[in-house]
Amino acid sequence: MPIRTPIFHPPFNVVRASHVELGVRDLAASRAFYVDCLGYLVSEETTETLYLRGVEERNHHSIVLRTASEAAVDTLGFKLASEDDLDRAVFWFKGKGLPTSFPQVPFQGRTLRTVDPHGAPLDFYVRMDQCERMLQRYAAHRGARIQRIDHINCFTPDVQTSYDFFHEIGFRLTEYTETDDPDPLLWAVWMHRKGNVHDIAFTNGRGPRLHHIGVWTASALDILHMCDVMATCGYLANMERGPGRHGLSNAFFLYIRDPDGHRVELFTSDYLTVDPDLEPIRWSLKDPQRATLWGHPAPKSWFEEGAAFAGVPVRTPALAAQPIVAH
Amino acid sequence: MPIRTPIFHPPFNVVRASHVELGVRDLAASRAFYVDCLGYLVSEETTETLYLRGVEERNHHSIVLRTASEAAVDTLGFKLASEDDLDRAVFWFKGKGLPTSFPQVPFQGRTLRTVDPHGAPLDFYVRMDQCERMLQRYAAHRGARIQRIDHINCFTPDVQTSYDFFHEIGFRLTEYTETDDPDPLLWAVWMHRKGNVHDIAFTNGRGPRLHHIGVWTASALDILHMCDVMATCGYLANMERGPGRHGLSNAFFLYIRDPDGHRVELFTSDYLTVDPDLEPIRWSLKDPQRATLWGHPAPKSWFEEGAAFAGVPVRTPALAAQPIVAH
Amino acid sequence: MPIRTPIFHPPFNVVRASHVELGVRDLAASRAFYVDCLGYLVSEETTETLYLRGVEERNHHSIVLRTASEAAVDTLGFKLASEDDLDRAVFWFKGKGLPTSFPQVPFQGRTLRTVDPHGAPLDFYVRMDQCERMLQRYAAHRGARIQRIDHINCFTPDVQTSYDFFHEIGFRLTEYTETDDPDPLLWAVWMHRKGNVHDIAFTNGRGPRLHHIGVWTASALDILHMCDVMATCGYLANMERGPGRHGLSNAFFLYIRDPDGHRVELFTSDYLTVDPDLEPIRWSLKDPQRATLWGHPAPKSWFEEGAAFAGVPVRTPALAAQPIVAH
Amino acid sequence: MPIRTPIFHPPFNVVRASHVELGVRDLAASRAFYVDCLGYLVSEETTETLYLRGVEERNHHSIVLRTASEAAVDTLGFKLASEDDLDRAVFWFKGKGLPTSFPQVPFQGRTLRTVDPHGAPLDFYVRMDQCERMLQRYAAHRGARIQRIDHINCFTPDVQTSYDFFHEIGFRLTEYTETDDPDPLLWAVWMHRKGNVHDIAFTNGRGPRLHHIGVWTASALDILHMCDVMATCGYLANMERGPGRHGLSNAFFLYIRDPDGHRVELFTSDYLTVDPDLEPIRWSLKDPQRATLWGHPAPKSWFEEGAAFAGVPVRTPALAAQPIVAH
Repeated sequence: MPIRTPIFHPPFNVVRASHVELGVRDLAASRAFYVDCLGYLVSEETTETLYLRGVEERNHHSIVLRTASEAAVDTLGFKLASEDDLDRAVFWFKGKGLPTSFPQVPFQGRTLRTVDPHGAPLDFYVRMDQCERMLQRYAAHRGARIQRIDHINCFTPDVQTSYDFFHEIGFRLTEYTETDDPDPLLWAVWMHRKGNVHDIAFTNGRGPRLHHIGVWTASALDILHMCDVMATCGYLANMERGPGRHGLSNAFFLYIRDPDGHRVELFTSDYLTVDPDLEPIRWSLKDPQRATLWGHPAPKSWFEEGAAFAGVPVRTPALAAQPIVAH
Repeated sequence: MPIRTPIFHPPFNVVRASHVELGVRDLAASRAFYVDCLGYLVSEETTETLYLRGVEERNHHSIVLRTASEAAVDTLGFKLASEDDLDRAVFWFKGKGLPTSFPQVPFQGRTLRTVDPHGAPLDFYVRMDQCERMLQRYAAHRGARIQRIDHINCFTPDVQTSYDFFHEIGFRLTEYTETDDPDPLLWAVWMHRKGNVHDIAFTNGRGPRLHHIGVWTASALDILHMCDVMATCGYLANMERGPGRHGLSNAFFLYIRDPDGHRVELFTSDYLTVDPDLEPIRWSLKDPQRATLWGHPAPKSWFEEGAAFAGVPVRTPALAAQPIVAH
Repeated sequence: MPIRTPIFHPPFNVVRASHVELGVRDLAASRAFYVDCLGYLVSEETTETLYLRGVEERNHHSIVLRTASEAAVDTLGFKLASEDDLDRAVFWFKGKGLPTSFPQVPFQGRTLRTVDPHGAPLDFYVRMDQCERMLQRYAAHRGARIQRIDHINCFTPDVQTSYDFFHEIGFRLTEYTETDDPDPLLWAVWMHRKGNVHDIAFTNGRGPRLHHIGVWTASALDILHMCDVMATCGYLANMERGPGRHGLSNAFFLYIRDPDGHRVELFTSDYLTVDPDLEPIRWSLKDPQRATLWGHPAPKSWFEEGAAFAGVPVRTPALAAQPIVAH
Repeated sequence: MPIRTPIFHPPFNVVRASHVELGVRDLAASRAFYVDCLGYLVSEETTETLYLRGVEERNHHSIVLRTASEAAVDTLGFKLASEDDLDRAVFWFKGKGLPTSFPQVPFQGRTLRTVDPHGAPLDFYVRMDQCERMLQRYAAHRGARIQRIDHINCFTPDVQTSYDFFHEIGFRLTEYTETDDPDPLLWAVWMHRKGNVHDIAFTNGRGPRLHHIGVWTASALDILHMCDVMATCGYLANMERGPGRHGLSNAFFLYIRDPDGHRVELFTSDYLTVDPDLEPIRWSLKDPQRATLWGHPAPKSWFEEGAAFAGVPVRTPALAAQPIVAH
């Protein structure tokens, strides 16, 4: 029985998925993609690093791009509710025998760096520098008018373990895919802290790897406009999947790849999940509308490609199953 | 100094604004308005009562319409996180010397009925019957394709008292209007539990009275379509204000009146507020873009009319100020 | 040199593509598709025939569905400017040695039935019964809120001949695809009378056959909503291609198949073409963005399948070329 | 009986309303408004003049702004079908005893300058320099993403005379407002050449004066975005009326004023009018939904203010009637 009762009083209070730090090989190319094409706002830039945010975000950054020799992911950032929660998190991770360190992170307060059970790096912090809110500076909205980071989606070699871990620190399941076996196995999970479908999701696959970061737009037309822009300014090959609608989460989506292959999901239209008695929605692995309510099946790359975490070995999952792939 | 530090560990855990019960004089006329025109789904109906929900709502009802001799409001409903929270709520309200009772409420579990400091009736409950989720039954979406209840907005004769009360039970301030006095007075407050701009708001005025219930749609075009429909099927006079955009909350809005004068706000486009360090946004009472970022000023009715709570006396506020009214 | 100077004073004045008559094998199934799902308005129905129109159309019908033993197309209808034009059309077709007859057509005035050079049946008429305009009866808009028929798209075994014929009767070229040979060959043409990209288009392929009828919606969101509806009420398999955007015509499109396999294109977003000096836009057959500015390549069925005209033999084209097909 | 039978074979063939030339007092301020805020593309600029076009326009300009000592209108431009039509137009205007001249107009071919019966300057031409089409250069779309000029709307001191004149040169009536007298008087007319609701409209009022130029956007959301932009970058006072929907023409509209008070209507959603048997739609002057299907009544300025034509005296109309004005 893979699904557990939600934990409403977790060991520490995670507010939400907050940011990702990505290694990129050509910062100018990344800037052209994220800023000039997608319309991200620049909070700060140096010769080595670019700090980006969406139009409603007051947190200093939700994407950090850092020049690197390879396109690996540096860390996944989560905001905690209080410094007490941060202390409790340190205690909890130490208790699990997981590594803890406290790197100096620009524009952030005290930051705990640790890992999940598969070695994926996680940063937990409370305070980040606050920037001007640009939500009502409409003349500055460009490209896809991205409002905010929404979630982080990862491949894991063992969904049950990843689920159990994030479950234990208070993430609540909203939707999941499992096999139709008498003793079903989890194929994918969507888990949240902030009250919509997810802050983090895991899918069975070679991992740990980042599958994508999900960013929210106010209108499906913003996403269609981004299709038009990308298709006509040299980014056609960067459009990997969509637009379409997922059965899971009900998201209207577009998946794109940045110049390093990092995947971004532009999406809109999920739903509120704050009710404690909200029953998670089960999807059979065999149901094709699970992944694609409508739209063309995902290409092979979408199922197979992802970004490794810097220095973290990737393992093959035990569970092998055939998703519906576009030919 | 009217603004307080948020309380992150309140005496009991309110999940969100959940529903309203409205007295209506002609249930058939109300059904025509809410179901045939707005597109609300009917969860249950009797000769006396209509239980309605939006397309994403699994809770049995977010609007209850009950035949009554006058168009008063019966109660405002809030969902709590657990039965323990309900026990704590009972203890807390008793400690404040406020009345507590436990009416049998159809389709709901144990329900505490009490009042706020101005006598507005409040229902707190944990369990409600769950209905089929219709979010992906798109062929059943009609009218404005309303997804869910979002918030409750009330007149209060004393904003500071209302703010203090809801603050104490854990509602967090996101935006507020105050006078420009050296010792400023609160004119209006927006407070949330579920992570967006508000679950409840209070504005200075004769109260306690319900100003409106706010309901969320996925697209501004759903709201424009409702304008087209209302204007051409006999509800032109029921369109009171908008469409327009509020400075406060950034909502794209339309205010409509039901056949009894109960006010509904269709809205979309606010933002995420889960960060504990999110600074509330202050608006000066003198700033006209506070209420109307753009669009025609609200009519006098919008500032003056509201629905009394059944049997609850209405008082005139101490604070008198002149909002910007359409001529 | 395949492209000709437009003829501004044609032998008779065609106003626009007006309607199609389709043979269907199960009228109830067709009604469920066109009326209940797509939202077409019914102007008239008998046990054998269904007359449909879009929400802005005052003409009695733009689609006629007639019970038939096979799913063939009966005729393509074009509106002429005046009875004099109809006389001139009769004279012109007789002069070309093409058959002319004057069938009694319900709800239409005098109607000339003839054929194009490949035998495709064409009806020309001036008067049609007028119906109530429903454009501002917004509460009656359903499904995709289709406003009007826009164009007819056919396979032809010889694009140059089809182009020459419609050119001679005043259709003006707006866009075309040709091979990159030194002496290029036409692969497809888009031609108009009414002032947007097309009233009729021809593509190289086994023909004459109807490829699709194109119908116009006011918003891309109407098309996305139709995707949602079709995917969740049993018509997922009827969604053949899209949504996406064509390079040609700039249309945002969705191609669907009715229960008999007749293809309908829902589209929006083309442009005005009334200027006599508007240069036709040339696309190379090798340019993949010609057909798909973005979106998944069309499936094989989209390139190969079409509806024959009742009793009209189909021929294989001389020109063989490989379009970009989805695998 | 004020309504006449359409003339399908006019003395010369006007293709459409093409452009306006406006005198502006501060070209930099106009540039900030039209280019930086509205998103118009600049085809050419000099120290004295700015030539603008929308994203689908291949004609060199649809708005010409010229530095002037006062904010008058220089001319209204119409495109003709051929040089023969231009010869016929010259002959016709001379026959009416109206002045004809042939000014050198930059970027245009031979241009006839004449006047309408009330002295409004009219330019007729066939050829204009062609520019790169930017419709599919999506990354260059800004602001309201205006696609094209649609129509010109004028005050006239005598609607019947204006109607008769444009009727005689082939403009066809689509909608009109008249009094409810037994012998009704025309209050306003909408007349087209290009196949939608209008190329030119006249309303009773002090004239001849330009009321507004109407420009077309693909989506209502482009118009709402322009509201957001204007309200937050210093142009709030330039938003005069709307958004709303007209009964007449069914347009979803926003009326804005440029820095000189010239009025621009952003609109979308009218309908096709090419059918010769399309009955004009009559509206009673007393019907408030004629002008405002929904939305706030127009302010007094909208009914009274307009731009005079340079050097052309303005007369008071004979017909006095009270439109519904916002208080």
